[in-house]
Amino acid sequence: DDAWHVAGITLRSRLLLGTSRYPSPQVLDDAVAASGAQVLTVGLRRLQPESGGGQAFWQRIAALGCHLLPNTAGCHTAEQAVNLALMARELFGTSWIKLEVVGDDYTLQPDPFGTLEASARLVREGFAVFAYTTDDLVLARRLHDAGVAAVMPWAAPIGSGRGPQNLHALRTLRERLPDAVLVVDAGLGKPSHAAQVMELGFDAVLLNTAVAESADPVRMAAAFAQAVQAGRLGHLAGAMPERDTARASTPTVGMPF
Amino acid sequence: DDAWHVAGITLRSRLLLGTSRYPSPQVLDDAVAASGAQVLTVGLRRLQPESGGGQAFWQRIAALGCHLLPNTAGCHTAEQAVNLALMARELFGTSWIKLEVVGDDYTLQPDPFGTLEASARLVREGFAVFAYTTDDLVLARRLHDAGVAAVMPWAAPIGSGRGPQNLHALRTLRERLPDAVLVVDAGLGKPSHAAQVMELGFDAVLLNTAVAESADPVRMAAAFAQAVQAGRLGHLAGAMPERDTARASTPTVGMPF
Amino acid sequence: DDAWHVAGITLRSRLLLGTSRYPSPQVLDDAVAASGAQVLTVGLRRLQPESGGGQAFWQRIAALGCHLLPNTAGCHTAEQAVNLALMARELFGTSWIKLEVVGDDYTLQPDPFGTLEASARLVREGFAVFAYTTDDLVLARRLHDAGVAAVMPWAAPIGSGRGPQNLHALRTLRERLPDAVLVVDAGLGKPSHAAQVMELGFDAVLLNTAVAESADPVRMAAAFAQAVQAGRLGHLAGAMPERDTARASTPTVGMPF
Amino acid sequence: DDAWHVAGITLRSRLLLGTSRYPSPQVLDDAVAASGAQVLTVGLRRLQPESGGGQAFWQRIAALGCHLLPNTAGCHTAEQAVNLALMARELFGTSWIKLEVVGDDYTLQPDPFGTLEASARLVREGFAVFAYTTDDLVLARRLHDAGVAAVMPWAAPIGSGRGPQNLHALRTLRERLPDAVLVVDAGLGKPSHAAQVMELGFDAVLLNTAVAESADPVRMAAAFAQAVQAGRLGHLAGAMPERDTARASTPTVGMPF
Repeated sequence: DDAWHVAGITLRSRLLLGTSRYPSPQVLDDAVAASGAQVLTVGLRRLQPESGGGQAFWQRIAALGCHLLPNTAGCHTAEQAVNLALMARELFGTSWIKLEVVGDDYTLQPDPFGTLEASARLVREGFAVFAYTTDDLVLARRLHDAGVAAVMPWAAPIGSGRGPQNLHALRTLRERLPDAVLVVDAGLGKPSHAAQVMELGFDAVLLNTAVAESADPVRMAAAFAQAVQAGRLGHLAGAMPERDTARASTPTVGMPF
Repeated sequence: DDAWHVAGITLRSRLLLGTSRYPSPQVLDDAVAASGAQVLTVGLRRLQPESGGGQAFWQRIAALGCHLLPNTAGCHTAEQAVNLALMARELFGTSWIKLEVVGDDYTLQPDPFGTLEASARLVREGFAVFAYTTDDLVLARRLHDAGVAAVMPWAAPIGSGRGPQNLHALRTLRERLPDAVLVVDAGLGKPSHAAQVMELGFDAVLLNTAVAESADPVRMAAAFAQAVQAGRLGHLAGAMPERDTARASTPTVGMPF
Repeated sequence: DDAWHVAGITLRSRLLLGTSRYPSPQVLDDAVAASGAQVLTVGLRRLQPESGGGQAFWQRIAALGCHLLPNTAGCHTAEQAVNLALMARELFGTSWIKLEVVGDDYTLQPDPFGTLEASARLVREGFAVFAYTTDDLVLARRLHDAGVAAVMPWAAPIGSGRGPQNLHALRTLRERLPDAVLVVDAGLGKPSHAAQVMELGFDAVLLNTAVAESADPVRMAAAFAQAVQAGRLGHLAGAMPERDTARASTPTVGMPF
Repeated sequence: DDAWHVAGITLRSRLLLGTSRYPSPQVLDDAVAASGAQVLTVGLRRLQPESGGGQAFWQRIAALGCHLLPNTAGCHTAEQAVNLALMARELFGTSWIKLEVVGDDYTLQPDPFGTLEASARLVREGFAVFAYTTDDLVLARRLHDAGVAAVMPWAAPIGSGRGPQNLHALRTLRERLPDAVLVVDAGLGKPSHAAQVMELGFDAVLLNTAVAESADPVRMAAAFAQAVQAGRLGHLAGAMPERDTARASTPTVGMPF
């Protein structure tokens, strides 16, 4: 009843999961199951036949029964990303692509220019583009106007686990782009971080490191699944106003009903 | 399997709920059901026979099948609180008491002196004392040493919905009082707030206004229930370390397994 | 002795001031004097002869004896901004320009695309470009590589007075662009905000609303002047490391020397 | 013209300085001079004749021409603190005492009970008590009611350099105790931290580690002196209101005057 829609399909789960850095294939399988994720993202370079083990890995991922969202991690130009996406479509039969055009090797933040250029080209080529971006509203609006399937702002640098560094900017994104599919992608470290952004009204979150590098990835996958639902329900329920002063929850005079 | 223990009983739910300020009795019933709470706190003054409707309210609460935790909200001295607790035990047959000795009418914060004095007296009288307190470590340790069943620090002033104002102090409390039952009581406004404190290792949270004054209390009760579980699981799973810099979640060289 | 260099000149003051929104011309004059500012920014539209009073305003500003930094506030395209800059050079005999190409009317944030395009064109035209931008590292590096005189990231939306919304991003900018002149422009509200960014090693700050809309602009100008110096000295002195735990400042055993 | 009054004297400087942990006596002298401090606090144990070098240290401090504020650092009970204070009055001819009754060796936070007890006794003995305390409003009010000369809440644990951990609590203290002399004591690390609390209206700040353990204590002393003044001026000037949205500092239509 609280399904969401992206790239032409309907999803129940609002948690998208990455497939890297797990301690073992079995842990990956179990974490995916525990997360309830219906979309998995995987680095294209790992799926390519020439990379030893790529085929086995791909089959394992395919067996999990989720939508595959190949990503262009490691690309530094629009050209590289577009080429990789085209190849992915050929090999794996999906027109979904998680676009990453990295503009800085220290923050791994997207290059606004390359990201917008590649997005526009890939949309024209018929791709459903999930565009990894910063929390820049102007860039996000351009990506949305270019026709991407989802705009995916970071909360913090990838793999930093720091959680939302600029909640004001994220809130503004949501308020100003009410019609865009907005997914927070990158920088979350704890379940409460996921709940925070879902409470703002984001459509979903995408995680990898926070689950894979937890001491117990399977349990952490379940934790994030619950946190995403909690945040979503909290958004729908409507939070009480924040107040500057205290107010007794138990009125001491009279009856409440 | 992740039960906890307080005042001699075992509980599955880590969410304790207040019973005030709901828009209607029916919403209260439904919110309690949605929350999965096994402990309900209720203002003693509302339970007293002389307050018209007190009897009906009490029967309604009793019908919900939860442990009753009467509270001394509105008391300003140890004496008042102790007398109210004694009366409550007489009338309702429970030796549980949520002790509130308010020291300031603006913040509704506990009076450290009155709270410690009343705690000591009530423990001697055989009560299971759930002591509402600030995030002061020295006071919390004294309360624990006095034998209270649970030390219940605030996150922020009651009814403010501001969420944790001093996470450093809460973390210190948990680390320095590993054997105490610690429940965050007061000041939470959103599900993510509950997840934050559960991630620190608190045993449970107690809420009222955040649920009762949500636009949709029943849904918000469910949201908090999930957030508490998410935070608890996150604590057990062990979060990734926070990093200053980015780190690719998708390694671009070699295979992960 | 702690002078800094921008656009070919040497400045002692690290506080640049805007000239709008003051309650009266006299208060503006006095605030400029109290601030010690050596650079004043002024909206070009206000300087144009056709705007009634423009000439008088310009003469008043000129009489303050500061470097004039005309700005392109209100421009929404690179084209508009470049044209305005060209006209300003003609009329006022300065090749300094504070470039603002607004990309969103709600946040008044710069348009990354228009800002970079206009910067490149203006640099080619021989301007010293002071480029107002967000805290996006990739964009900032592009602006620096394009040859702007100063990269001027916001701390928060213009006129919001919220102070630094993403200190992590600002710190990263400073660390990753050690050779750029970096000036925080927009969003500061209190003296402590200015000190915070100066402590990170920014070269200067640019303010307007925080001074002009203070209850006492002249005193607030003095407050910011001191805060900028405090933050700068703090940066040069090198702050103590932040610690998780307490450590007695007065050792209780032995002598310190 | 902006002097303040404490313990019967009038002071210009709002920065009180500790005398421990400096790299050398000369650096201490120079830092005191750079800070403009008129009050120095020093651990009583270091002033006692039996501690080798105590006499020399005391003469050095006395030569700096500041008011001496002996402190009871290291005391764990009211009894110890009172005895030390009595001895100090005897030896050094001052009835000023900075009262520290530590309640926890990890946070070095004051013991609320011992601090209040010792304060009351020392006030009766004729001391001017500068009471180190937490940000607990009820305790602070009790100390004020007991007649202490200054209530001195921490910003964070001593020596942690973390800066204000709970600005909401500090703001509440100031608002609710308008007649008390309130000095932030402990936990500041950077000049901006001092400005933050002065902006709230605190009367002064007391520092030690942030200056003494800076890479350049003399310069850092000057930085804090400026930050304290900046924050004070900012408080007096009255900050602009914080806004949720942007607002052009340069109006693009019409003239401002």
